[in-house]
Order: sequence, then C-alpha cells, then structure tokens
Amino acid sequence: MSGGLLSSLVRRNASKIVFLVLDGAGGLPYPGRDGTALEVARIPNLDALARESVTGLLDPVGPGITPGSGPGHLSLFGYDPVRWQVGRGVLAALGVGIDLQAGDVAVRINFATFNSDGTIADRRAGRIDDATNRRLVDLLRQRVNLGGECRCELQTVKEHRAVMVLRGDDLGGRVTDTDPQAVGAVPIPASGADSASSRTAELANELAAQAREILSAERQANGVLMRGFASFSPFPSVADRYGLSALAVARYPDYRGVAKLVGMTVLYDRFANLAEQVQAVRQRWNDYDFFFVHEKAADARGEDGDFDGKVKVLEDVDALVPEVRGLGADVLVVTSDHSTPALMKAHSFHPVPIMLNASVAFVDDVHAFSERACGHGGLGRMPMQGIMRLALAHAGRLAKFGA
Amino acid sequence: MSGGLLSSLVRRNASKIVFLVLDGAGGLPYPGRDGTALEVARIPNLDALARESVTGLLDPVGPGITPGSGPGHLSLFGYDPVRWQVGRGVLAALGVGIDLQAGDVAVRINFATFNSDGTIADRRAGRIDDATNRRLVDLLRQRVNLGGECRCELQTVKEHRAVMVLRGDDLGGRVTDTDPQAVGAVPIPASGADSASSRTAELANELAAQAREILSAERQANGVLMRGFASFSPFPSVADRYGLSALAVARYPDYRGVAKLVGMTVLYDRFANLAEQVQAVRQRWNDYDFFFVHEKAADARGEDGDFDGKVKVLEDVDALVPEVRGLGADVLVVTSDHSTPALMKAHSFHPVPIMLNASVAFVDDVHAFSERACGHGGLGRMPMQGIMRLALAHAGRLAKFGA
Repeated sequence: MSGGLLSSLVRRNASKIVFLVLDGAGGLPYPGRDGTALEVARIPNLDALARESVTGLLDPVGPGITPGSGPGHLSLFGYDPVRWQVGRGVLAALGVGIDLQAGDVAVRINFATFNSDGTIADRRAGRIDDATNRRLVDLLRQRVNLGGECRCELQTVKEHRAVMVLRGDDLGGRVTDTDPQAVGAVPIPASGADSASSRTAELANELAAQAREILSAERQANGVLMRGFASFSPFPSVADRYGLSALAVARYPDYRGVAKLVGMTVLYDRFANLAEQVQAVRQRWNDYDFFFVHEKAADARGEDGDFDGKVKVLEDVDALVPEVRGLGADVLVVTSDHSTPALMKAHSFHPVPIMLNASVAFVDDVHAFSERACGHGGLGRMPMQGIMRLALAHAGRLAKFGA
Repeated sequence: MSGGLLSSLVRRNASKIVFLVLDGAGGLPYPGRDGTALEVARIPNLDALARESVTGLLDPVGPGITPGSGPGHLSLFGYDPVRWQVGRGVLAALGVGIDLQAGDVAVRINFATFNSDGTIADRRAGRIDDATNRRLVDLLRQRVNLGGECRCELQTVKEHRAVMVLRGDDLGGRVTDTDPQAVGAVPIPASGADSASSRTAELANELAAQAREILSAERQANGVLMRGFASFSPFPSVADRYGLSALAVARYPDYRGVAKLVGMTVLYDRFANLAEQVQAVRQRWNDYDFFFVHEKAADARGEDGDFDGKVKVLEDVDALVPEVRGLGADVLVVTSDHSTPALMKAHSFHPVPIMLNASVAFVDDVHAFSERACGHGGLGRMPMQGIMRLALAHAGRLAKFGA
C-alpha cells in the first residue's frame, strides 16, 4: 500500500502507542539447550502479555534477507527498507545528535594505530578510552583545515569511534572506505564513483593525511580510518506520515540515529539501563503520542554467541515488563528488529516474534512470547513494514477507507 | 499478479460459483460473552460447511485498513481496491439502477429540514417516508432547471435519501460536500478542486437554491444537502476479466451499486429477506455462471453495537445454508466484506473468516466457521483480492500457466 493512501487515512486522537524493541531477541534453538533463548528464559511477564495480545511473526525485509539495524528499524516504523536506504555514516551522525542538512556527507571515523611504515597495527587503536577520544577529536577540530569551501564537523562517539560530516556544494556520498579491514595493510585511498563523490573523496583523503600529521605524537591513536560514507537525504517524518509526535529512548547511537531520521524527538541522555529508559518515558508521557524504547542487550549477547547471556538479559527485560505495561499505553507492541541467534553470532534472516496488546486486538490462543509460539498467532506471518499501520489501526488512528 | 495474466488464463466451462457475503459477520470477542458473534451463535450448518471446506482469513485491503463497502466488495471481486476507487455518489446512483456514462457526476442527496434563518434543523428531515420522498423527487424533477447544457437526473432511494446525476461536457467530481454534518449550521456551498469540478459545484449550488424555493411549502423536507460527489469512470467487467456472466442479488443499494460497477446483472426487486434472494438465484440458475448473494443484517447489528442481535441474524442465516448448498454450486464461498465488531459499533480492520467449498478444495482440519477457527485453516491469512482467482481455479476456469 502506498504511503500516500495511509497518510490520507490518518486521524489524530489522544491514544498512546509504545514500541518496545528487544534488539536481536529472536533466534534459533541452541545445541544442548531446550529451545531458543526466548523459550529457555523464564519470562512470565512477557508470556502473560502474549496471552493478552494478538501475536505473530514478522519478516523485517523479506524471507531470507538479513537486515542491518537501519532496515530493521525502518521497517518497524513502516518505511519500506528497500525504498528508504540509509548509509551507516548518516545513522552514526544522527545518532550523536548532529543536525544533518540535505547533501551533507557523513562517515564513520575510527582511530587506529599505524606503524611507521604506514601499515595498520591496530584498527581500533587499542580501544582508547572515551576521554582520549574526546581529546583527539578536539585536537582534530582545532587543526584540520580542508579549505574554505567545505565545512567539516567532527563528533566523538565512544572508544575508538567518531563521526565526520562534510558540508559543502556538490559533495557526493558514493565513496569507498579507507579501512582495508586487515591489520598489516595500508589504508586504501578513498575514491568517488562520480564527480561529486570524487570531491568528497579528495577531502577525505586530505583529512586522513592531516590526521596522521596532527596525531603523530600519539602512541595508540596516530591516524584514522573511514567507513560508511553516505550522503544525507531527508526522510518523511512519522509526523508527516502518521500524524505522530514521537519520542525515542535508546541507549545506543545507531538506534537514536534511525529514530532521528524519521523525525522522532531523540533523548541523548546517558541511560544506564532499560529501567531508566522506561522512567524517561513515564516523565514525558503527556508530551508524545508514540514511544520507541530500544533495548540492545539481547542482540549483543547473540552477536557474542553467548546463549546463556542472552537468556539472562531476556529475563532482566521481563522483570521490567510490568513497568512498561504500567505506562498504560493504548497499544503496546513488543518485538525485535531482527533475529540474532547465538548459534550464528550474527544478525539473521529468521522472522521475529511480535505481540500487540490493545483493547481491540483479537487476542489469539498463544500462551508464550517465543518464535515458535507466536508462529501460531492471529497475525500469521506478515511483513514487518505493516506493523506500524496495525498499531495505528488498533489505536483508532486510521479512518475508514472508501465509500 | 496482474489482471492481464489472469485474464489470459481464463477459460469458460459450465461450472457455477456462488459468493454468499455475510456483510460485517467478522468481529471481536464481546465482554461477558463467550467469544465472537460467530463463536457464540449456534450455526451448525455453517460449521458443517467449514468441515467440508478449505478455510482461512482474508485481509480486505491490508492489515490495519478498515474498508468501506466499496473497497471490501471490490476486493472480493478481485479488484485491487486501492487501484480501483469508487465514490459514494457513484455507488448510490448505480445502486438505484441509474445507467451511468463516463464523465457523469453523481452525488447523494439528503432531504433536510431548514429553519427560516437557513440553518439546519434536521439533517434527515425527520426521516420522511418513502412515498413523501418519491413525491418530492418528482416535484424537483418537474421544476428544477439547470439550463440547457447539463442534464440532471434525480432518483429516489428511501426515507430522506435520494441521488442526483449530472451529465454534461467537462464536469468534474472533485467537489466538496454541502452537508456540514451539524445541526444549527448552514450548508457549505459546494466548491470544486479544478475548473471542471467548479462547474459541477456551481450546478450543485444552483440546484440547492432552487430546491429551497421549490420545497418551501414543505414542513419537514424543505431543502437538500449533498454528500459524496463522484465522477464515474467505467470499470472493467467480470465478464472481461474472468469470462463470467454474473448475477447480483442484494437488498441494499450500495451493494447493488458495486456489483453493477463490475458489470454484473443486478436484480432491483424488493427482496424481503435472504430466503427470497436465494429463491431468486434458484430461478435464474441456468442463466449465469456467478452469483453474488449479499446479506446485510450482521453488519447492521454490529454497527448498532447489538451483539446478541448479531448472533441472532447469524443463526437466521445459518438456517438458510442448506438452501444455498442445495443450489449445487461447484464453488461456494462464504465470507464477509469486512468485520463489524459490536464492541466497536463500526466497520473494523480485522481480517474476516472465509470458507471455500469445492470438489477440489483441500479440506483442512477446521471444524467451525469463526475468526479463530478459520485462522488455522488451509488458506492461511491472505489478501481478499486473491479469493476470486481461487474460486475460478477451484471451478476449473483457469488454464495452466506456461509451457
């Protein structure tokens, strides 16, 4: 269905919608364990919510497609992730609060350790601490000079990571990474796929050269590598598309970035845990219609291959479910942006369980929140992209279509 | 799948297809009752048919989208309801048997009671009786004069409702309603969104002014309000698309209208009930391939919020199922055009149960005709638009595709 038709049906009301996204919660049964992490974990509150919800399975992009964080979340927010692609540099820049303008080119910067012969000794500069990162970013800000026609903005992220935004006329984002992704290799000069991108590449190469000079006295972080060049084009906002005033409460930059991309208000506070995030939602409950609450831990344990750790974080999340329910949302959606089976130590293409709780939800017979149980749910197996529309419908925010 | 491919596969045979559409039969569990109206109702004949059918759930337009009567039925008839949109005026005009031509503009007319200061006292003119309606329509027909270039056709509907069709060169249908939908307000002059529609709006405003003059002696219906202007563009017919000679047997105008829109032969008889409709089908059994039988009552009770009434009408329908089966259709489809939960007192976005009975249907394990039971059926959850194709296939009316 076209976004135009959906937008034409949107009406506003006082309802509240909460999306609790358990990143990477979906997975596979693990050898020697009795099922998936969701099946093994004791999650009585999530299971109780499943019993009071309509459930199902969602395909983030399509069967067989493993989504990155961007496509997974865009799909959750109702954006066709194939139509609406976003580069990693843009997500990173938005994620740290840089206010991007159309045509800006953003790229991730990693501090690295270089040998005297120019080869790379450590692609992460020994994971320098955040304070060192901030000091070095300040140093580069003061000293880098790319000429008058282009503005260069640098922003610290954490450990060895930073982000750079280039702003100027006619810059392109189709630029290759300088990071060779191998220790002992030399960085690859950036190159552009068209004339505008070649301009960007020249500026990036100039910055890399200046950084080697400026950081030459550093023991660990004596140079930079660049990955994920991307030109920024504004996305339609959830306000424009759905009439929603939306708040994003996430701990990690990329998820803040994708929320910012679709026009949500993003809290850039340093939340220690999900409990603090839920508290932040409670404090702002009257100010927004839609709340995106992102919990990263299950994905991280999955990526580590740590099945038992993933079970543990799901149990921790479960303990907070009463708090989330206590917010009193009219529509509460709990799902994942993608699966991260500990068995695979990576994102995967498997569909993710979903539950949607609302007074007009057709509650099905599913009694647990898991991949297998929700596979028998009333939503069936559906494209993730439809879930925002369903949430709006259950919130009474979509008018009848047609005579 | 494109209509072109489907049409290329169509072949004719002597099979008979019946669609029994129980408008608004789908719903939600009702507080204090033991499930949905379909679950609570004693419907042994529908349940028996489910046991001998392949079943499933259909999304009329898409998950989360609440369809009007037009889109729901167009989807049942295999037309993409987003591609093929129809305005309310056109449905109303076709529904009372007006033979529309391309470019005609149709609009619903409601007789209303106006105060002497021009404000509206009653938007439905005290729901005048049908005889009064006919008398007033005749009066307007005799006296209204919109000039020589435009033909104006007026047709009675019932109670306070009528329909008007304007025919002339270069008339547009993008015209705003004159009905302010509030008592105490004055009518809003119609206005057009483009030059052709502005011509229509002028004619409509002239008609409204003349009607006030002509009806000035009436106590109740001393003026008219207009809603749902729509320009008519012919749709491809079910004969063209599917090679079907089709008969529509409905009691209410809008459903006659949507059937007429897709080229069905429509019976305009006054049927008292479903039994008479089934009888009419039986009498014309040899003359058509496809029979659309529409039963309105479940939707009406749902809209009233009358759960027990909805249960009752479903039980009444059930009693007629042996008659319908007795027709001996090769393919019998029983479903809804949309859900109308009594809980919501309105159409809703929830998927509807479907059962398809045919000698080559893969009968599943479902033992009851309800939303929940059919959710486990062999058709799964599918777009409603595909059900006409499935019916044709089960009737042996689609040739093999490809070498």
